[in-house]
Amino acid sequence: MNKGNKYGTHRVLEPKGTLPQPAQKLDNTMSIYDNEVLIDVQTLNIDSASFTQIKGACNADTAKMEEMILSIVGERGKMQNPVTGSGGMLIGTVKEVGPNFPNQNLKVGDKIATLVSLSLTPLKINKIKNINLSNDQVDADAQAILFASGLYAVLPSDIPEKLALAALDVAGAPAQVDRLVKEGDTVCIIGGGGKSGMLCCYQAMQKIGPNGKVIVVEYSEENARRIKELGLATHVLVGDATNVMDVYNRVTEITGEDSCDVVINNVNVPSTEMTSILITKNRGCVYFFSMATSFSKAALGAEGVGKDVDMIVGNGYALGHADLTLDIIRKSEGIRDLFEKLYV
Amino acid sequence: MNKGNKYGTHRVLEPKGTLPQPAQKLDNTMSIYDNEVLIDVQTLNIDSASFTQIKGACNADTAKMEEMILSIVGERGKMQNPVTGSGGMLIGTVKEVGPNFPNQNLKVGDKIATLVSLSLTPLKINKIKNINLSNDQVDADAQAILFASGLYAVLPSDIPEKLALAALDVAGAPAQVDRLVKEGDTVCIIGGGGKSGMLCCYQAMQKIGPNGKVIVVEYSEENARRIKELGLATHVLVGDATNVMDVYNRVTEITGEDSCDVVINNVNVPSTEMTSILITKNRGCVYFFSMATSFSKAALGAEGVGKDVDMIVGNGYALGHADLTLDIIRKSEGIRDLFEKLYV
Repeated sequence: MNKGNKYGTHRVLEPKGTLPQPAQKLDNTMSIYDNEVLIDVQTLNIDSASFTQIKGACNADTAKMEEMILSIVGERGKMQNPVTGSGGMLIGTVKEVGPNFPNQNLKVGDKIATLVSLSLTPLKINKIKNINLSNDQVDADAQAILFASGLYAVLPSDIPEKLALAALDVAGAPAQVDRLVKEGDTVCIIGGGGKSGMLCCYQAMQKIGPNGKVIVVEYSEENARRIKELGLATHVLVGDATNVMDVYNRVTEITGEDSCDVVINNVNVPSTEMTSILITKNRGCVYFFSMATSFSKAALGAEGVGKDVDMIVGNGYALGHADLTLDIIRKSEGIRDLFEKLYV
Repeated sequence: MNKGNKYGTHRVLEPKGTLPQPAQKLDNTMSIYDNEVLIDVQTLNIDSASFTQIKGACNADTAKMEEMILSIVGERGKMQNPVTGSGGMLIGTVKEVGPNFPNQNLKVGDKIATLVSLSLTPLKINKIKNINLSNDQVDADAQAILFASGLYAVLPSDIPEKLALAALDVAGAPAQVDRLVKEGDTVCIIGGGGKSGMLCCYQAMQKIGPNGKVIVVEYSEENARRIKELGLATHVLVGDATNVMDVYNRVTEITGEDSCDVVINNVNVPSTEMTSILITKNRGCVYFFSMATSFSKAALGAEGVGKDVDMIVGNGYALGHADLTLDIIRKSEGIRDLFEKLYV
């Protein structure tokens, strides 16, 4: 059996020397290297940006979408949307575990979700069985490879698979909140009403104790109402996060000039960096989960207003993130019911 | 006297409701609001990206460059390059201090450098006196406004002005290094041979103690040689930071698989995010000063390889950054001599 590289560089066909994610084309031969895992795929959970792009390009015609997905995977050896660059995750059953795969507790027959992006996962699709236009999921007869550095979670028996998949997709967010927020903190969660935002709110509320604050800024009236109903914040503001001075004025009305210890940005529209920075206190922290974040707007913005804040690039991985997120689904009946309705 | 907003929003002409930096046009009337400072400008230190763009567009013809700079400032009320979006800094003499400017110790006649970007500083140029093609500096008869939140440093009497200006331009970098690096740490400074990189090296060497390591990865042979001669690192590697696996292999040869506690990225070319992430240990930290950093490459990259690292957006401001940086110039004769030769 051939020896594989921890990061999967042995699967990169072009350009040579890069890692699997930036690569144009991966080797998707479905026989494993010594440190890999072979997975029989059940469902692909396509990243929302990618699925929306494909759906748009095909006028929501599932036959055409099937053709497009097969052509992408045929060409690249992975399900990485060439327009958005993004991937998604998958669930499936372990078929074979290489003798040098780091976690030898993983067993053939285990049902797992991969927690690394499809944009770097070798994939071969034999047949697409169903495309679900409402939740971005594609059921397929397919196989995939997990590298030695690849993250995964064994699916729990007490949570429906597709619910677990929907929650695990954003598992990094509440795990980072858990690390950052301390008792008594004032936390603002911008875009707190979405999937990732709600999990962040829940975790922040767990951490702040009786004297802290969780302020949600949310664009959608309906999402804001839900946050209130589920008791996931101490204050909910409906507003447009791109309107810097409006949000700044309304948040400081609640917090005073001393403003927030931690700001979590979950908004998926551009130009909310300054809003996040202005409502953070000096030596406070802004955590940017939004993939619409502009590095230079954040960097120059903080200096421009003389704010000594730490600005952190959202990392979708944190040790223990899958367990923490599945525990939220177990503990919060409200979030569980809502996620089942919205995403399953 | 009219009351001004702390962040200068009262100077924004269009679009209304934004902050001075993203604004298209500022009011550059040179009579101050109650919380502003009026400055008689001596020299503009144009941001390198902006200066290079202007020089290129004008074929290094200083008469044409003068015309272009005057036209930008005439149109926007600030020296913000419309192509690069960047600004720079200035030095000048305080002409008037508003009664509500926060620091009333600042006196008329003080020589200061502004530490906020020219991209948000109201500026009116009467006459350009000289454009120095080798150090990006423009001597001018001009006036500028500093907002209440605007950062500045009173220029020290023991350091030549233009040397101070060159060092203060990157003052944030060594100040952040000072916070992040602890005794015994293994630190890698990617692009350690440039202006900002050398200051970072110096500060890291101060902090690591006898058992730490400072590893510099530098593209230029000449810069690498300088770092060695000045004793600013324990290890110097000449290499291309975009070549992920090459740098990873060579750094881990020095550090072992446990790799670096802190990685500082100062490289001004794209696609060095993965290199930085791979050489950082789990729960270590990558600090991105490079304005060529892609937010999404960093965010997806760390998750893709399962690295639980903190990735921080470089903030050009940190409390005390100007003093710390000027002190390096005072203490390190080698850096001082080199900066004088290169930037003054």
